[in-house]
Amino acid sequence: MSVLSRDDLAKMDAADELAAARDCFVLPDGVIYLDGNSLGALPRATPDRLRDVAVGQWGGDLIKSWNAHGWIDLPSRVGDKIARLIGAGPGEVVAADSTSVNLFKALAAALRLNPGRRVIVSERENFPTDLYIAQGLIALLGRQHELRLVEAHEIPAAVDHDTAVVMLTHVNYRTGAMHDMVPVTRSTQAKGALMLWDLAHSAGAVPVDLTGSGADFAVGCGYKYLNGGPGAPAFIWVAPRHQEKFEQPLSGWLGHVAPFAFEPGYRPAAGIARYICGTPPVLSMVALEAGVDLALGMDMAAIRRKSVALTDTFIRLVEQECAGLALVSPREPSRRGSQVCLRHDEAYPIMQALIARGVIGDFRAPDILRFGFAPLYVRFADVWEAVASLKEILAAGSWNRPEFRVRAAVT
Amino acid sequence: MSVLSRDDLAKMDAADELAAARDCFVLPDGVIYLDGNSLGALPRATPDRLRDVAVGQWGGDLIKSWNAHGWIDLPSRVGDKIARLIGAGPGEVVAADSTSVNLFKALAAALRLNPGRRVIVSERENFPTDLYIAQGLIALLGRQHELRLVEAHEIPAAVDHDTAVVMLTHVNYRTGAMHDMVPVTRSTQAKGALMLWDLAHSAGAVPVDLTGSGADFAVGCGYKYLNGGPGAPAFIWVAPRHQEKFEQPLSGWLGHVAPFAFEPGYRPAAGIARYICGTPPVLSMVALEAGVDLALGMDMAAIRRKSVALTDTFIRLVEQECAGLALVSPREPSRRGSQVCLRHDEAYPIMQALIARGVIGDFRAPDILRFGFAPLYVRFADVWEAVASLKEILAAGSWNRPEFRVRAAVT
Repeated sequence: MSVLSRDDLAKMDAADELAAARDCFVLPDGVIYLDGNSLGALPRATPDRLRDVAVGQWGGDLIKSWNAHGWIDLPSRVGDKIARLIGAGPGEVVAADSTSVNLFKALAAALRLNPGRRVIVSERENFPTDLYIAQGLIALLGRQHELRLVEAHEIPAAVDHDTAVVMLTHVNYRTGAMHDMVPVTRSTQAKGALMLWDLAHSAGAVPVDLTGSGADFAVGCGYKYLNGGPGAPAFIWVAPRHQEKFEQPLSGWLGHVAPFAFEPGYRPAAGIARYICGTPPVLSMVALEAGVDLALGMDMAAIRRKSVALTDTFIRLVEQECAGLALVSPREPSRRGSQVCLRHDEAYPIMQALIARGVIGDFRAPDILRFGFAPLYVRFADVWEAVASLKEILAAGSWNRPEFRVRAAVT
Repeated sequence: MSVLSRDDLAKMDAADELAAARDCFVLPDGVIYLDGNSLGALPRATPDRLRDVAVGQWGGDLIKSWNAHGWIDLPSRVGDKIARLIGAGPGEVVAADSTSVNLFKALAAALRLNPGRRVIVSERENFPTDLYIAQGLIALLGRQHELRLVEAHEIPAAVDHDTAVVMLTHVNYRTGAMHDMVPVTRSTQAKGALMLWDLAHSAGAVPVDLTGSGADFAVGCGYKYLNGGPGAPAFIWVAPRHQEKFEQPLSGWLGHVAPFAFEPGYRPAAGIARYICGTPPVLSMVALEAGVDLALGMDMAAIRRKSVALTDTFIRLVEQECAGLALVSPREPSRRGSQVCLRHDEAYPIMQALIARGVIGDFRAPDILRFGFAPLYVRFADVWEAVASLKEILAAGSWNRPEFRVRAAVT
């Protein structure tokens, strides 16, 4: 393979069909932002939308805004929009609560759908909140269930006649490894288990076809590739065939069929609306909607093409320019999400040194340098600059300073 | 008692020690807002705080903001501030999730603290989400527990050796009736049951002394008298003596002792932080903080004095000026929160007619006109104008029009 030059990457930017999308975001000067998989960037439209909701709606119309400005419909309206990004239909998704809380709803529903079975299967390397929520639910239910944690390649063998549900994150948060949704779902269901996907690192970044996959449940995050803002509300999808079988346990008033009848007994709303619990956080929800609206204006196939090109180019350049780093992410693009992870024993101070130079990725314990490539605003020139910085830091050993070893609260 | 005149109320405004507080809010012209118990008004500081967080922090510092701008501390920081408004100490409250979700955490914890007991006692007239959440938890736990609903005056007799927890809303959402927290808590605990208070209609409006009450758990709402914005995050308090006995079931990653260690097993954080679940919705949380900061600058005793004066005056004026309305709220101020409810068979169209004239209260099914008096921005002149409008509408029968009978999604 030929040597990649800065010019080659400039040509890729010139040919980028999504190049104009970057103008839809506010990005600080002098920063190369490769952490959109942790917190997506600020859409240019969001501050004015927030101001309009705060000043125009809340300030101007007060309580009337629940009807007049459709606040009450936000969970369903934003959910329907997210559905279009993940291969789901209208009335199948609501935006609500956090990913963790939605996992609880989905897991509780799955155990109830499969009452004779005792085991939740997941990956040991799944994002911890998924595992913690399963552990909390199991403890609440009296420890009759078991969380069986295995390596990714052991999953098919770990699913048996006692497995109620398999809970996997589509794209792994640390490695970027992506499961093939259809065969995993099929082999899970062939054994009578239900399939729950966490789309935290997928929605908005890679094509997802929930309906086509035949999955049972999905949850996902609003503040990564959906650019919904820090701690944005999450979403939950339930296959229509399961939605009305029973209510989920977080049966709050806005999931009631008639919340404003103020009846003492819970009667679940029809369809996915019963997965809403309390009152939606309108300001955060409106920012999420702005991010989702932006994504809906883009071509998901183009997003995926650019994502693969960015991550391929980054891997190639790192291997061309830098020594001492091991590729953790799959080399094969079809098995990789929109991020690349590299291993180095000194990953923490190296990442701090990069950040000090304006190249923002993140560290994942114990030894991972993680770089996310949000195709809507990352340029090929950014890939060049990031690798050039990494090369210099490694070559000069300039990461090896005490200030780069200070651990922050959030790493 | 002498007849109250418009002048009398003008004098009350002139003598109002909290009169200046109204300038801290944005309120639309021509509106008399008596629904701050449903959605508090917009603090003047909030739009700029939101813009600063969106543009300056999210847009400017991206992921670094979690440390640089203390986003990660928001649940504890805002919780500590709310604690000062409800008689709790630092490290005893977190702001998180919705009231409904926090009720689930508290109820699950209470049942686990009192494992030999089977019954949750509550009021039939409690806010429905409290009852629905109890019903959802009971269903999840296999229906071994029972939700026993009684009238307020029957509560002491309903608590017995089988009662695990008594769950009450301090100020009733429909009637405004306020429980006397200390004796109810004592008589509950004397029977070995735990006491859970919902402070949705109390926090920021009436003095609350959780520590002095000896209660076990409390939850509350951020978007009523705390003026935290539509669907603002809620809060949860757990008595320090219970905090570390076990983890709550919604064991999300931000309640972990070391969330960024990404361990596969859940280990709860020390103290109240284990009641945090997922990532906080920063934009909504910052708006909540702005509302709470405003309340912290005020004297709670003065707030209560004005609240009693407003509600007393409203009751007196309604009885002086209007016929055909029955007082639902307690007449005795010590038994009443910061709202007044009136009964009329045609409450729905009457309230719509009021709203059409710019007097905003709300309707609660089946026959309640509800008026909230937020002491920080409601004036005695507003009380006069509201009653004058009500009088005219009733006298002229002008509520009796088809357009006032159209039911909105949110009533």
